[in-house]
Amino acid sequence: MRCEVVAIGTELLLGIIVDGNSAWIGEQLALAGIDSHFQVKVGDNFGRIEASIRQALERSDAVICCGGLGPTQDDITRDVIAHVMGVEMRRDQAIADKIRNIFEARGRVMSANNLRQADIPVGASPIAQMPGTAPGLVCPVGDKVIYAVPGVPSEMREMVAGTILPDLRRRMGQTAVIRSRVLRTWGASESGVAEMVAGRVDELDKLGNPTIAFQASGIDGIKVRIVAKCDDEVAAKRVLDSEEALLRGLLGDLVFGIDEQSMEAVVLGELRRRSLTVAATETLTGGILSARMSALDPAMEVFRGAIVRPEAAPVAARAASPEQRTGTAAIEARERFGTEVGLAAVVPEATEGHGAGAVFLGVAIRDAQHIEKVMLTPDRKRMREFGVIGLLNQLRKKLLA
Amino acid sequence: MRCEVVAIGTELLLGIIVDGNSAWIGEQLALAGIDSHFQVKVGDNFGRIEASIRQALERSDAVICCGGLGPTQDDITRDVIAHVMGVEMRRDQAIADKIRNIFEARGRVMSANNLRQADIPVGASPIAQMPGTAPGLVCPVGDKVIYAVPGVPSEMREMVAGTILPDLRRRMGQTAVIRSRVLRTWGASESGVAEMVAGRVDELDKLGNPTIAFQASGIDGIKVRIVAKCDDEVAAKRVLDSEEALLRGLLGDLVFGIDEQSMEAVVLGELRRRSLTVAATETLTGGILSARMSALDPAMEVFRGAIVRPEAAPVAARAASPEQRTGTAAIEARERFGTEVGLAAVVPEATEGHGAGAVFLGVAIRDAQHIEKVMLTPDRKRMREFGVIGLLNQLRKKLLA
Repeated sequence: MRCEVVAIGTELLLGIIVDGNSAWIGEQLALAGIDSHFQVKVGDNFGRIEASIRQALERSDAVICCGGLGPTQDDITRDVIAHVMGVEMRRDQAIADKIRNIFEARGRVMSANNLRQADIPVGASPIAQMPGTAPGLVCPVGDKVIYAVPGVPSEMREMVAGTILPDLRRRMGQTAVIRSRVLRTWGASESGVAEMVAGRVDELDKLGNPTIAFQASGIDGIKVRIVAKCDDEVAAKRVLDSEEALLRGLLGDLVFGIDEQSMEAVVLGELRRRSLTVAATETLTGGILSARMSALDPAMEVFRGAIVRPEAAPVAARAASPEQRTGTAAIEARERFGTEVGLAAVVPEATEGHGAGAVFLGVAIRDAQHIEKVMLTPDRKRMREFGVIGLLNQLRKKLLA
Repeated sequence: MRCEVVAIGTELLLGIIVDGNSAWIGEQLALAGIDSHFQVKVGDNFGRIEASIRQALERSDAVICCGGLGPTQDDITRDVIAHVMGVEMRRDQAIADKIRNIFEARGRVMSANNLRQADIPVGASPIAQMPGTAPGLVCPVGDKVIYAVPGVPSEMREMVAGTILPDLRRRMGQTAVIRSRVLRTWGASESGVAEMVAGRVDELDKLGNPTIAFQASGIDGIKVRIVAKCDDEVAAKRVLDSEEALLRGLLGDLVFGIDEQSMEAVVLGELRRRSLTVAATETLTGGILSARMSALDPAMEVFRGAIVRPEAAPVAARAASPEQRTGTAAIEARERFGTEVGLAAVVPEATEGHGAGAVFLGVAIRDAQHIEKVMLTPDRKRMREFGVIGLLNQLRKKLLA
């Protein structure tokens, strides 16, 4: 089964918008076991959109057209698809009503133009999911199919996940359910993670199901993706649960979360569960830790705050070791904000001989101090970003210990 | 003149990497007055890369192939291009020496594989810019041309700007120079900015050169791009300078910078010029302002620090008006860090009747306080981001007043 993506919009070609939609769709198709050999960007031009769709339909079994479903004159995806299908357009009353209702609910006046969005090719069916005013379409062409989805990422995703992927699987004659889960790790390299689960990978190569794959994702850590193909949801969940348990056994506390869980979400959850609060002294990290924590805890109930300030002056620095300074900075935060936990990351002076990229991560929990030295790529931007996650990860491990 | 982009790499189709390169190249081509009607992503497959290049070459005058120039077996762009050109490969000694030198300079051992990167199609010329180990190529095919550049964005950009765009202009018989400049504004909507310069736009429509265009760019503000087409660099610079002066006259202090200058870079520069230092109390903004400022001022010489903490408790809040609380918070930062300037953004309590999305921006400069109320889209993430830029913009205007 092959499916191409045609992203439509002159603003994509001009670089005003980066086409992240095709990338996301490509990932979903790959997870569903569907090949996507070509992905094309084309502008708002009838002939060129037509040529792109026809070629994609010739080479593949399905085409997903993304964008050009708005109400204005340059949104012509619907018309081009009708032309390729060789049919007329018809006004869909149910869609027209939905669009009217959306405008009424928002208290806005609907111009006649907006009803263009209710004109769909004869023989096409609207996609049930319709979070905005642009309906998605399923358009059969012989034994092949053209899908149309809006370019708004959230609307596109809802339609692809809710209708297009299931429809593609049905067309593949695949009654099987494919589900995936990502284990997120921090603290080892991609090859390190791969080595720890190498034995299990060999076993799975023989079993064939589930499969696992690794993906290095910068400050999102190394991801281990489990993909299970089963007869139904219940069986898929059972396979994912059991594989997750097995991999967690091999990877231990390297695993900090699953799927979309970020390190800061996990740490805030663990603190909340224990009724602990946290504060930080931010020197190297300069506010990045605060920005991440306060985004998820807007009332600052768990993350109580931070002092952002320069590293201690060299003279003051020399009076104490970097370990001591890190501990002092973590306690400074704890005392200033009256929290149980204090955090700090300190870069030693060059003259202290720890080498470029050395960072001391300090976690103070009540009276206990835990200081750890890590060596990071000696690039300040990376040190700041990795310092934040490393520090949160160290706190996570202390909480779970 | 038409030029297509073929982005090569299976990881692009799988969504592991989002193809930002094509978007950037598309923008450069548009600025140079070159049409780009199609942009294609294709995996590391000989036949499919060949088909994509042949089709692009048929429809257009030039093709830029991006990616697949690395040293491993799946990097086959060079081989496919040689096949399309109908020529053999040859080892280029100058490139081989450059690659050897790069490895030596980095103190790394070079494997024999790496010299594959010195194999280029007969008749192709290497691109002079070569910041990494992958050489770019200019490959004539009849009166058309295939360019090859690596997928590493910084290397790609250097080659496109340094060799490919000038070569395309030469091929267009265009001795003209096209240069652009972006004026960055904050404080008015796209339509507001457009209205202020509407008269000038009408004049330019008649003159034809330079042209101006508007682009709403979220927290990067509204951009006004001037594009000048002239006989030479000197003339282009003169046109851009004079148009910039004219537009600045119309837009006044809405213009905060040009081209890649960020709001925080501009504000840090203005403070440094006046030997002033700044600190902040971050409640709503929760560390975002600090993270942006400390990224550009790592030693924290101008931005001296911040206190990140929750908004005052409702009881404390009711003792003073939101204006007073904002002033107090700005002074708190100034005093705590011993700076001349203090900043704070405060969200009033719902019961205070300022409406959803109200934010008070406070700038304290020595003994003077400037408090301004702004209404933002009532979404916390947006309020945080826009609050930071709004606050910095207010400081900028006070400094320039």
